[in-house]
Amino acid sequence: MSTGDAVRALRGRLLWFVDDPHSAGEAAHRYLADGLLVIENGLIRAVGEAQALLPTLPADAAIVDHRPHLIMPGFIDAHLHMPQTQVIASYGAQLMEWLNRYTFVEEQKLAQQGHAEALCAFLLDELLASGTTTAAVYCSVHRRSAEAFFAESHRRNTRMIAGKVMMDRNAPEALRDTPESGYADSKALIARWHGRGRQLYAITPRFAITSSPEQMAAAQRLVAEHPDCHVQTHIDENRAEIAFARELYPQAADYAGIYEDYDLLGPRSLMGHCIHMEDREWRAFAAHGAVAVFCPTSNLFLGSGLFDWARARREGVRVAVATDIGGGTSYSMLRTLAEAYKVLQLQGQTLPAFEALHAITRGNAVALGLDHLIGSFEIGREADLVVLDPAATRAMAHRLETARDLDEQLFVLVTLGDERNVVATYVAGERVASAGQRVAAPAR
Amino acid sequence: MSTGDAVRALRGRLLWFVDDPHSAGEAAHRYLADGLLVIENGLIRAVGEAQALLPTLPADAAIVDHRPHLIMPGFIDAHLHMPQTQVIASYGAQLMEWLNRYTFVEEQKLAQQGHAEALCAFLLDELLASGTTTAAVYCSVHRRSAEAFFAESHRRNTRMIAGKVMMDRNAPEALRDTPESGYADSKALIARWHGRGRQLYAITPRFAITSSPEQMAAAQRLVAEHPDCHVQTHIDENRAEIAFARELYPQAADYAGIYEDYDLLGPRSLMGHCIHMEDREWRAFAAHGAVAVFCPTSNLFLGSGLFDWARARREGVRVAVATDIGGGTSYSMLRTLAEAYKVLQLQGQTLPAFEALHAITRGNAVALGLDHLIGSFEIGREADLVVLDPAATRAMAHRLETARDLDEQLFVLVTLGDERNVVATYVAGERVASAGQRVAAPAR
Repeated sequence: MSTGDAVRALRGRLLWFVDDPHSAGEAAHRYLADGLLVIENGLIRAVGEAQALLPTLPADAAIVDHRPHLIMPGFIDAHLHMPQTQVIASYGAQLMEWLNRYTFVEEQKLAQQGHAEALCAFLLDELLASGTTTAAVYCSVHRRSAEAFFAESHRRNTRMIAGKVMMDRNAPEALRDTPESGYADSKALIARWHGRGRQLYAITPRFAITSSPEQMAAAQRLVAEHPDCHVQTHIDENRAEIAFARELYPQAADYAGIYEDYDLLGPRSLMGHCIHMEDREWRAFAAHGAVAVFCPTSNLFLGSGLFDWARARREGVRVAVATDIGGGTSYSMLRTLAEAYKVLQLQGQTLPAFEALHAITRGNAVALGLDHLIGSFEIGREADLVVLDPAATRAMAHRLETARDLDEQLFVLVTLGDERNVVATYVAGERVASAGQRVAAPAR
Repeated sequence: MSTGDAVRALRGRLLWFVDDPHSAGEAAHRYLADGLLVIENGLIRAVGEAQALLPTLPADAAIVDHRPHLIMPGFIDAHLHMPQTQVIASYGAQLMEWLNRYTFVEEQKLAQQGHAEALCAFLLDELLASGTTTAAVYCSVHRRSAEAFFAESHRRNTRMIAGKVMMDRNAPEALRDTPESGYADSKALIARWHGRGRQLYAITPRFAITSSPEQMAAAQRLVAEHPDCHVQTHIDENRAEIAFARELYPQAADYAGIYEDYDLLGPRSLMGHCIHMEDREWRAFAAHGAVAVFCPTSNLFLGSGLFDWARARREGVRVAVATDIGGGTSYSMLRTLAEAYKVLQLQGQTLPAFEALHAITRGNAVALGLDHLIGSFEIGREADLVVLDPAATRAMAHRLETARDLDEQLFVLVTLGDERNVVATYVAGERVASAGQRVAAPAR
């Protein structure tokens, strides 16, 4: 170890992935029952057995003992909507009606002074309280909403991907930009924020329904000019949505073909939902290296359908997992995994605990093309991490009494876990302060 | 009001049902924004506007002010397994494998001295902490497990329905009774516990697969001799289970026909799951007045399938809602409702908030034939109730800022709620003590 005062070490049970357990099996994960994670300047400098590493630390290193808790890389959420934290749990509608009745109403409030700032602070509090340290975030159509999000994320030094939504039709007038303004605002945001600190920009045409061909062409120009930016959009969530999109772009081969025609289906494209995919669409995803984003709580809550992960694997398509707040119903990636498990079970597929926890750490990092930076404890990675207590609730503690091994213990965490299991969250090596998850006292 | 010292009054927002909101609409519920519930000797003596009732109370009446919280009748859970609190969240198998690999292993431990007592105490703690005051409970095959459950429930004065499982084949030898011992043990338990205090007995042949025709005939005798006891069993959960049951009872018209042939399909029969029902089975349920028990978290977790509530309505079959612990993944009936909503959404059906909250209170009371005793705040009913804080988590408090009316507020509670929303639970007018739901501190 070098210079003393910047060194910090966390002791606890360490779990991370170096490969995909679906293909690599047991070799994919690393587990240390008494491990030490050494952090310097926000990066991981060493990881190993505590007994072996402790003597190598400088005398003034700060050691935080998190035993017996589990320390994992911070969770990654591949798709959510910042303006929808007050849309969660809105009743009764399927996609198109839900957008018009609830979402577009709330999104209009983002034009108000201070509202975006308040929502961004709330969202980041909630994500960090849930152990999520990176997310791909849709802001509203307003440039200021993305400004507010990046400013808040930058202040907290979180590694976030976000973009201003581009949307110039089939939405209330107050929520429409134009092909020109959508381009110019995105361009300005990219110049100001992409690569500044830990912030990354995603070019964000909401979906083909709300972008005219002219705006899709503008997005295409942005992608050509900024090939290192992500693209995020929606596809194949709902049958009515698909029919409408096809009607608007009759010349496209299919829904995926619409995005393909504008070069929006590429290796940095995060395509939300992918539930009702045609054979050619799967092949197009594979050919372009596009990412299918699975949003289980949202897909169930809106009754959209069941994502076919086994099919994605067979087709060679990368999959990311996401909450889709506010169509989704939980900020917790653990809760999201529990619902993913159910979606797969209904299709005769399954999701072992190691695969599940890989998905929301290294798996999502790979899908986002950020695995050289985050998602694991390999040396040099950014020290974003979550400290978990798998026995945080009485029901979980009781259940864990009979758990026979780590795999079973982790499966309980995946099935019953949520933000209550998060003991601490660290961003670039710093423990982030928070008032905790509860508003009310736990008494009864 | 009569004699002073037994009178207690709870003040808060009161919500209860006097009819089914699916048919009766707005007329089905009663809501008092500032209500008073007056309790004497464990029963509801009066309910109304606080301002009107307060002057009528005796001078020494104890008034508990729960404003601004919501007070509802205690929740009712129509199906769960006491021996499975340490089976919850067991990985990967569908029904038959899950039984053999996990459940039957844990159930054998119930033969150990003290184990049943510990599990019963845990279960009742957890149910009450979740706001559930009545449940229909499967014990293990051991007579002592039902003894332990009834003793613990009697001590707490909770209104519970339970029974010793009858199971004489297709299970490990240590878990088998015989037609004779199953009959005699059930008979003895009925004599000792049915109608004692608030305890009720359910004749409990686990399902046709684990009961020989001789044992089914023994259950039939029990039903004939004790027509006021409930019957609880399983049906049509899983395709492999159905095929196996049909093979074991080839003379039956169908799975329902097996139970019908032994008079086990009657108006007090709680039939767990009912997912893969044939046309004739629905008609048989309607003809006999049997209850279909919908267990959404279990059905999703085990990948069993989607319960068709609209069909049950069309067929005139009563529906109850249940956790099915430990196939189910939450003790909370609120969480169970959120999953019920998702199951219905996937089928193009829906579940408005009032219907959902009706289901777990008066609806389940009607299905269990206990609506003259529990499930509402009508005068003379037993004062089992739950005090709820719909804004108990930060995410819920934030979401509720934009809720426009009671309906929307309740829908948030149904969609995002769980045991964290339970501020207090009362059993027969007494606030039940508990260490609270959390083991770990909420700090982060």
